[in-house]
Amino acid sequence: MPFDPAPALERMRAGAPLVQNITNFVAMNTMANVLLAAGASPAMVHAREESPDFMNIAHALTINIGTLTPAWVEAMHVAAHAANELGKPWVFDPVGCGATPYRTQVARDIASLRPAIIRGNASEILALSGVASSVRGVDSRDEVDRARDAALSLVGDYGAVVCVTGPVDLVTDGTRTARIVNGHPLMPRVTALGCALTGICAAFAATTDDTFEATAAALTYYGACGEIAGQTASGPGTFAVRFIDALANMNLSTLTNMARVTLS
Amino acid sequence: MPFDPAPALERMRAGAPLVQNITNFVAMNTMANVLLAAGASPAMVHAREESPDFMNIAHALTINIGTLTPAWVEAMHVAAHAANELGKPWVFDPVGCGATPYRTQVARDIASLRPAIIRGNASEILALSGVASSVRGVDSRDEVDRARDAALSLVGDYGAVVCVTGPVDLVTDGTRTARIVNGHPLMPRVTALGCALTGICAAFAATTDDTFEATAAALTYYGACGEIAGQTASGPGTFAVRFIDALANMNLSTLTNMARVTLS
Amino acid sequence: MPFDPAPALERMRAGAPLVQNITNFVAMNTMANVLLAAGASPAMVHAREESPDFMNIAHALTINIGTLTPAWVEAMHVAAHAANELGKPWVFDPVGCGATPYRTQVARDIASLRPAIIRGNASEILALSGVASSVRGVDSRDEVDRARDAALSLVGDYGAVVCVTGPVDLVTDGTRTARIVNGHPLMPRVTALGCALTGICAAFAATTDDTFEATAAALTYYGACGEIAGQTASGPGTFAVRFIDALANMNLSTLTNMARVTLS
Repeated sequence: MPFDPAPALERMRAGAPLVQNITNFVAMNTMANVLLAAGASPAMVHAREESPDFMNIAHALTINIGTLTPAWVEAMHVAAHAANELGKPWVFDPVGCGATPYRTQVARDIASLRPAIIRGNASEILALSGVASSVRGVDSRDEVDRARDAALSLVGDYGAVVCVTGPVDLVTDGTRTARIVNGHPLMPRVTALGCALTGICAAFAATTDDTFEATAAALTYYGACGEIAGQTASGPGTFAVRFIDALANMNLSTLTNMARVTLS
Repeated sequence: MPFDPAPALERMRAGAPLVQNITNFVAMNTMANVLLAAGASPAMVHAREESPDFMNIAHALTINIGTLTPAWVEAMHVAAHAANELGKPWVFDPVGCGATPYRTQVARDIASLRPAIIRGNASEILALSGVASSVRGVDSRDEVDRARDAALSLVGDYGAVVCVTGPVDLVTDGTRTARIVNGHPLMPRVTALGCALTGICAAFAATTDDTFEATAAALTYYGACGEIAGQTASGPGTFAVRFIDALANMNLSTLTNMARVTLS
Repeated sequence: MPFDPAPALERMRAGAPLVQNITNFVAMNTMANVLLAAGASPAMVHAREESPDFMNIAHALTINIGTLTPAWVEAMHVAAHAANELGKPWVFDPVGCGATPYRTQVARDIASLRPAIIRGNASEILALSGVASSVRGVDSRDEVDRARDAALSLVGDYGAVVCVTGPVDLVTDGTRTARIVNGHPLMPRVTALGCALTGICAAFAATTDDTFEATAAALTYYGACGEIAGQTASGPGTFAVRFIDALANMNLSTLTNMARVTLS
């Protein structure tokens, strides 16, 4: 039976979840627009003085270490604890993990707070798991499949659904694995689309009980929108614009038909 | 006699005011592009070490608490005092007021510094005034008209022109009230367009003596540009791009003809 | 013999250099997209705890003081020292130099760390050199040619290649001078395009030994892409989108033919 992401998209739009994001400066605007276009409600809240209170009204949280500093890392810990206490899902995006010792340590500390989902590219997932990698900034030089063992290791260590994004996306909860072929080559040429995807995963996880299914559906929806944007884009500039339109306009039956997901 | 926003737009473009903005990380880029497209000159300056000096050359100031932290709040106070001492108008945007106790307190403290204009959505204006509201992040679940009494209360408390934006915008100085119907449903689907509007209000206020008229003209211009963008947009992505074009290309007679404003 | 920027573009794309950027909040997203579109790899890393380590894997660095605070200025010094120790080129963008005493002092302190390239508009270059100027925020009111003497003075003081951008761009290393006519009037109507150009200069400098040639080639490429974007833009919104496309799609022979550079 083929995997159908449409019911999860329908629930996400109906729920219009409020997603609190502690993310990097590069991604904030893009992430907010991606969440709004998809039908969720974004809020960027990071001050220690209010982020635990804000989790009372938010439905999910994302934490992204892209432009980390010690003060922000402290705010991330406070917010993750608040989400855990309230039983709300949070997604961790270990941007650039492996690039510096400081970043790798920060990433492992946050992962140990037990996010519902960890999303990264192959280099980041390899580095986070401790498997040797040759990280080069925020690009990924390792193929997604090489990161499969690392993903399973992270599932074991932290109890999260782990997803490794790249030309083929991999999602695993340790028992089930989904491989998602949807996507477009221009997606990594637009900054922050990976970061923004972390927000989409959170929005789906906030409205679907099965976190594995939520994650696989979020990635399939995202990749399919990329394909639609790519049909009329003439470069990464027009691609970015039409991708936002596609997120807003995607209808359920089109998504069902476009999904290219292998479950195992 | 119908309200004509065109003379205020003409003065703003002729004056090309330099607007200093202490705003949130999500909105900075959008706000700068909106101000440039409209014909004003934006500068994002928030360091305590220089923001009072910068007010010497700026013509107006905006303060937006979207991604507040204590250090930034302190910088906002310093800048507001400098603007007051120099007699330059400043506009306050109480983003998310009501969402957390910390944010609400910060917003009231800043409002007490007596901005020339307070601009928010209905939820924010209700929360700022102390009228009970059900704030949900930065979205507005209260209708603009429900916020009319709250707006009048804020006029009394702080002496500001208060404007409540939504499907219908409301502007009041306690004596006069304008209701502005211009706008497009895609505007709230693009992040930071409300925040950027705060900058447009400041630019108009810097070049028109009557702050009430300046505010009503700014909102009418903005809404009319939204309508033009909406005519050819196929989603929030293309809308955002064409909205910037419309801000730059709007001509005075078109604006006069498009204005849908009721004064009372 | 006319100046041909195409070989430098070819080398930059082949090298796909990793450029570390400590830049302002307004420019981060735009700068990342510009670098990705051009074929380089951007990383925004500013924490003191990791930026020296990150310079080990980065090929070049940019420092931009647009939204400076003391903590960020400290991080800029740390990163510049690391780049110097590793012999990697860094580019300094003294945004708004002259606007406040604090900003001018910070800019001079950073320039004294001896960047490979200093890039600014005429007002900034005049203020940095100590020549009296009437700076008005981040706009330029002085013509590029008026800044020629100031540029030569900065070359003498700091040993950098200095470039003054405006309707005509000027690049000088004290011996050679290039004047670049390529560009489009909408470029200053889009925020952060100047800041992002600083990143392009760094990417070229990382892959071409002659810093003067690298800088002149970067500016010519950038201006030519602006001209292509301007051919189909209907305002600053569509211009920004098509400019990103043009950066990605520019081919070498087109660039050779479009270059309008005078060497002296």
